[in-house]
Amino acid sequence: MADRQKIIIDTDPGQDDAVAILLALASPELDVLGITAVAGNVPLKLTEKNARKICELAGKPETKVFAGAIRPLARTLVTAEEVHGQTGLNGPDLPEPKMKLQEQYAVDFIVETLMKEDAHTVTLCPLGPLTDIALALIREPKIAKRIKQIVLMGGGFFEGGNVTPSAEFNIYVDPQAADVVLHSGVPIVMMPLDVTHKALTKATRVEKFRKLGTRVGIATAQMLEFFERFDEQKYGSDGGPLHDPCVIAYLLKPELFSGRECNVAVETGSELTMGMTVIDWWGVTKRPKNALVMRDIDHDGFFDLLVERLGRL
Amino acid sequence: MADRQKIIIDTDPGQDDAVAILLALASPELDVLGITAVAGNVPLKLTEKNARKICELAGKPETKVFAGAIRPLARTLVTAEEVHGQTGLNGPDLPEPKMKLQEQYAVDFIVETLMKEDAHTVTLCPLGPLTDIALALIREPKIAKRIKQIVLMGGGFFEGGNVTPSAEFNIYVDPQAADVVLHSGVPIVMMPLDVTHKALTKATRVEKFRKLGTRVGIATAQMLEFFERFDEQKYGSDGGPLHDPCVIAYLLKPELFSGRECNVAVETGSELTMGMTVIDWWGVTKRPKNALVMRDIDHDGFFDLLVERLGRL
Amino acid sequence: MADRQKIIIDTDPGQDDAVAILLALASPELDVLGITAVAGNVPLKLTEKNARKICELAGKPETKVFAGAIRPLARTLVTAEEVHGQTGLNGPDLPEPKMKLQEQYAVDFIVETLMKEDAHTVTLCPLGPLTDIALALIREPKIAKRIKQIVLMGGGFFEGGNVTPSAEFNIYVDPQAADVVLHSGVPIVMMPLDVTHKALTKATRVEKFRKLGTRVGIATAQMLEFFERFDEQKYGSDGGPLHDPCVIAYLLKPELFSGRECNVAVETGSELTMGMTVIDWWGVTKRPKNALVMRDIDHDGFFDLLVERLGRL
Amino acid sequence: MADRQKIIIDTDPGQDDAVAILLALASPELDVLGITAVAGNVPLKLTEKNARKICELAGKPETKVFAGAIRPLARTLVTAEEVHGQTGLNGPDLPEPKMKLQEQYAVDFIVETLMKEDAHTVTLCPLGPLTDIALALIREPKIAKRIKQIVLMGGGFFEGGNVTPSAEFNIYVDPQAADVVLHSGVPIVMMPLDVTHKALTKATRVEKFRKLGTRVGIATAQMLEFFERFDEQKYGSDGGPLHDPCVIAYLLKPELFSGRECNVAVETGSELTMGMTVIDWWGVTKRPKNALVMRDIDHDGFFDLLVERLGRL
Repeated sequence: MADRQKIIIDTDPGQDDAVAILLALASPELDVLGITAVAGNVPLKLTEKNARKICELAGKPETKVFAGAIRPLARTLVTAEEVHGQTGLNGPDLPEPKMKLQEQYAVDFIVETLMKEDAHTVTLCPLGPLTDIALALIREPKIAKRIKQIVLMGGGFFEGGNVTPSAEFNIYVDPQAADVVLHSGVPIVMMPLDVTHKALTKATRVEKFRKLGTRVGIATAQMLEFFERFDEQKYGSDGGPLHDPCVIAYLLKPELFSGRECNVAVETGSELTMGMTVIDWWGVTKRPKNALVMRDIDHDGFFDLLVERLGRL
Repeated sequence: MADRQKIIIDTDPGQDDAVAILLALASPELDVLGITAVAGNVPLKLTEKNARKICELAGKPETKVFAGAIRPLARTLVTAEEVHGQTGLNGPDLPEPKMKLQEQYAVDFIVETLMKEDAHTVTLCPLGPLTDIALALIREPKIAKRIKQIVLMGGGFFEGGNVTPSAEFNIYVDPQAADVVLHSGVPIVMMPLDVTHKALTKATRVEKFRKLGTRVGIATAQMLEFFERFDEQKYGSDGGPLHDPCVIAYLLKPELFSGRECNVAVETGSELTMGMTVIDWWGVTKRPKNALVMRDIDHDGFFDLLVERLGRL
Repeated sequence: MADRQKIIIDTDPGQDDAVAILLALASPELDVLGITAVAGNVPLKLTEKNARKICELAGKPETKVFAGAIRPLARTLVTAEEVHGQTGLNGPDLPEPKMKLQEQYAVDFIVETLMKEDAHTVTLCPLGPLTDIALALIREPKIAKRIKQIVLMGGGFFEGGNVTPSAEFNIYVDPQAADVVLHSGVPIVMMPLDVTHKALTKATRVEKFRKLGTRVGIATAQMLEFFERFDEQKYGSDGGPLHDPCVIAYLLKPELFSGRECNVAVETGSELTMGMTVIDWWGVTKRPKNALVMRDIDHDGFFDLLVERLGRL
Repeated sequence: MADRQKIIIDTDPGQDDAVAILLALASPELDVLGITAVAGNVPLKLTEKNARKICELAGKPETKVFAGAIRPLARTLVTAEEVHGQTGLNGPDLPEPKMKLQEQYAVDFIVETLMKEDAHTVTLCPLGPLTDIALALIREPKIAKRIKQIVLMGGGFFEGGNVTPSAEFNIYVDPQAADVVLHSGVPIVMMPLDVTHKALTKATRVEKFRKLGTRVGIATAQMLEFFERFDEQKYGSDGGPLHDPCVIAYLLKPELFSGRECNVAVETGSELTMGMTVIDWWGVTKRPKNALVMRDIDHDGFFDLLVERLGRL
């Protein structure tokens, strides 16, 4: 299949990361060159293991999983067990993975892959803090001109933040890394809370996964039911926002999303607003546009895609 | 009328300030002890003159108008002629005012009034940068315990800002003053862009003012038509947000508005987010609640009130 | 005496402020138009009383003393009782003052005086936080072009700070006020710790005051002995730095001091370095020169002047 | 020689880096496990080449030289050709190096070495921006407990900065890296400008290198004559401060230096003071002591050591 999009998923699973990985592994349009784990929702030791668990759940133990950054560039690691549970994947009872972690450092894998593959053929899909991506750009700045695009979940503006009033978790954990990525010149597509909060895991939607009747379907339902509790309690909503699969869904069906080219700047100087993504949606500054920021989603289409694809596994 | 609410309007007219003043002067429930002008939308020389023009338009030349701060506490004055026009009141052709400016400094008037009137009987209604109010609190901190409440127009969170991506004009012009007010312990009701952007001066609404057929009605229609052009062009909306009258409308009909007690913190340290009001709507910080922040408005009820009251003048 | 320099001393006594006031009142070259008290070393209630005590000690109860700002512009008041004692003037046993505090607000006095006196004839001598001076500049920006010069004690660079590692007390207490003053365009002479730490109250010097045998001489010796304990303990020096009298001494004998025209910028954005005066001594930035910053002092000449003048009272 | 101290020199030569390398290679007490180059005074391509040139000048082409970070963690690279000349080693005419650059990434070499060698036996000697060291700590936080100590040249407090009024070049280039290092818990000895500015390359001292009559001696004299011009012009001094060799000299003769255990914090939030090392010399904060900060040097002893050792090459 000559036209498969080559992607590297950088991730800190997390239940919503897990669904994003499942979606990617279930989709023949995508060629997952590797999955790189980063510290974020839970520590690296868990995120790399969780990534392997999900590959095995998907029946794809041949997927290459790499461990990357154990901590952010310049700040102490903050994790989110209150959202994801102690393992990061609370909900289903997934077995310990048998597949091995790759020996290569995730950052080296990213750099090597980008230098080896044809320029503009590899898309990076960061679903967690941007530490690994920033470290790759610091390690070899030449990759900036070779990456096809970075489609990332992170930030938020009109929805505010989720870890502080104004900062979203992924960016808050490593604002310096986000700053490096946003200044890299790489084409960026950004899925902020402004769009992911419109993709709610309602009870009827979770039920559709369960009704698949497969291991993947049932585990997904269990993961989402655990995951959504935090946001349901906080926001009083039916379901929680299914953040990370938006990144993969965009690669498969970009028409599900709509947004705008904007300047996005990250606050790195003030603790009050640390890690906030200041999105110049209305173009009131002279700052150059550096990201396509999504704000709307066809959420029914999105969940239809998810159910259909996960049903293939 | 023993029950009239005593208020001081602190303002930088501005067309929307003008409508707020008209609304107050038209409302028998309110006892406007004085109008204090502050530099903001346009320089002080114009704002104090505009305040007098509006009092005369309302047929209330006996209203006391005072000039206050000519500049913000710690930053260079920024004005907004691109929104309000060179005079601040572009639109109608209002005559030069004949009524005199009071000799007393606005800040001294505020302090003196609060120390003289019974405690908890005077409400401050700031419609512009909070410089005068902060200067009064610096001049005599004892007033903090005597002010009934401060009902202010300023800030914005879920709507972002209007002068920078994250800062609303009134707070941006004097973030230090806003910080002083928000830390004063005075009960605060805040009308941010999040609510005022839901009060749009649609063509049909402007028409209702014009159809009053009075000088006030026609001048109001002319002011709004000038004023709304900026936001219509920026947001592609029908009409512009009628910010400041929300403050006065709240005093008359609080039931038009709904909101939540929150902590509000002002960014004063970083240029990127300078003047942003960080509203902890979801209570994710431990910071104490210091303002009742409005987010929703019965906009039809609001405009009905406005038309009815301005029709009395 | 047509040539007397007209000065206003703005002060938060403080033992070293007290000596500065004594020096001024003892010097026929100076016409002390008024002494304005500000909150700083101790709260305003004490600083204004202490100013009056010192005027009476000097035998000049006709001096006009005004109370000014009770708090800084934008931060909570920090005081320094650990240095100055609970009264601010610990050491001698000075009687309660009989002279009255002026009724006028210090800030109004400063503005009124500057607008009334001939332009460029009045020098401001701030010895404490710059709140009163900033408030005057905010109240009436026109005074900036009428002030002859501001000779102030504050800041520090090569010596570091005294309240935090990098901030000197006067500037730290109200960095926003310092910022307003440094951006005012008024000619500024600055006496930072870099020069005042070279004016040590050694035992032999204190003894000279005592040997004057006068009430003033003995009280001065007692004040200095109390005051120097803090710095002696901290720095292991013989004596403490006699900061504030440097301001008055400069008016009398500028040749005692040497320094350089520099840009001085105040940190107002970061808590770590809050209130630091960044002095561009070597001219490595393009920022405009806005102060004559003193760095060296003829300390023997300085103390000779002090003893000689205080001996006249 | 069982007792040789194992060191890794991390460097961005730079003439003073070059002298530090020569001193290390000339000293039998030191076992230079490797030299890692970092971008700083000049870009990485030049610093790694310069490191090799100096090894060859020293007659030690077997020394392992590695290339490390091509850019700082979170900021754009700033270089200092105005000080060091276009090549970074302007002055002598050194031939292109024949020895090869090691293929391993400097950061990996640092991590691997520290994990392989016995704990607490390897000293890191950073002479440039701390990027490589921070990247190693990010790559493998476990090394923090295995490093014997970090003896670094960087920062400045009482002398101010050299690239901005308050920041020294090495820290300014990568303040986030400095922050990572200062928070690592590794024992740190810091040679700030406060001590290096007391080690001036006076004409008589330069002459002593030239009189060695060797290639090394003559090249050193030529390097210093080029290097000192910048500081001589700026400060009007005889000679310039010979920064980096202080690090190596400390390993050989710690008694040449004196200082104090302090807390050192790096400003990373404000552009005005960005990269400043706030040294709590007087212990006025509660922040924990994290570095032995040197302030005095036996400069004659230091230059005697340099001449004697370089004479051995």
